[in-house]
Amino acid sequence: MRYSGAMHQSSPSDRRLYADDLRVGADYPLGSYHVTREELLDYARHWDPQVFHVDEEAAEHGHFRGLITSGLHTMAIYQRLAVLDVFQHWHVIAGRTFREVQFLRPVRAGDDLTGTVRIESIVPGARERALVTTSAELVVAEGKPVLTLLVDAYVRLRRDACSG
Amino acid sequence: MRYSGAMHQSSPSDRRLYADDLRVGADYPLGSYHVTREELLDYARHWDPQVFHVDEEAAEHGHFRGLITSGLHTMAIYQRLAVLDVFQHWHVIAGRTFREVQFLRPVRAGDDLTGTVRIESIVPGARERALVTTSAELVVAEGKPVLTLLVDAYVRLRRDACSG
Repeated sequence: MRYSGAMHQSSPSDRRLYADDLRVGADYPLGSYHVTREELLDYARHWDPQVFHVDEEAAEHGHFRGLITSGLHTMAIYQRLAVLDVFQHWHVIAGRTFREVQFLRPVRAGDDLTGTVRIESIVPGARERALVTTSAELVVAEGKPVLTLLVDAYVRLRRDACSG
Repeated sequence: MRYSGAMHQSSPSDRRLYADDLRVGADYPLGSYHVTREELLDYARHWDPQVFHVDEEAAEHGHFRGLITSGLHTMAIYQRLAVLDVFQHWHVIAGRTFREVQFLRPVRAGDDLTGTVRIESIVPGARERALVTTSAELVVAEGKPVLTLLVDAYVRLRRDACSG
């Protein structure tokens, strides 16, 4: 393996869960992420260079009275937290859909984000995989939601569960 | 202004369009973006460190027979292209929702992505703003779609259009 195991688990010591091991209604608390002004600007300059994300002076006089993160940046923070605390521990094949991604409040430099992921449904399918739908909410420190979304991802089923 | 005008337009020479200027059915071709292996790995290591995005050896033996971009990375590429060719030319207040974000095919290092944005609806609302819904498709060079999504964003109405 090229990279250390700190960021993910892999064979030979692979203890990741299969879709068979997951339970609808299970809740997973996420870690936290501190948004810095530098990262807010870096992300937006490359990926979402709209005035209210990259121009501090214009943003001060704009709708939000200051810089706000790109929605993509907020989603990326969700993804990092969800992978580290949830998805890296599953046999995920790939994500298929993000649904109803709602940006509920602006996220600003200095905010600390955390959240939860919940398993909404598990639908076994063909080719030894299940479609697992999770809902997620990202909140700022005071508990106010800034992002909600639904994610459909393919997760491997145990081979013996399929052939049995 | 802190940053040069190359990435966005702003006052005093502000020629951005208002929601009143937009037309349902209008199509906007996007520029193109080349995905490098280095960027694929950099993005995934920080934001989406799942095995099939960051571990080349494991990815070779996995479902996709090689590294694929994080879906967030593909969305970020869409956002960059859409901002540069479409949204930076509008008086966008903020994005509200991403709906039905579908990852249709894997995106790999070396792929060149381009796409289109179409205005699906424009719904004038209160507080001098309209909710503008756009659909978008991102394709690889051969024209095969890799990403489709719907975006709802608030766009400013002309003041005189509201008071008239």
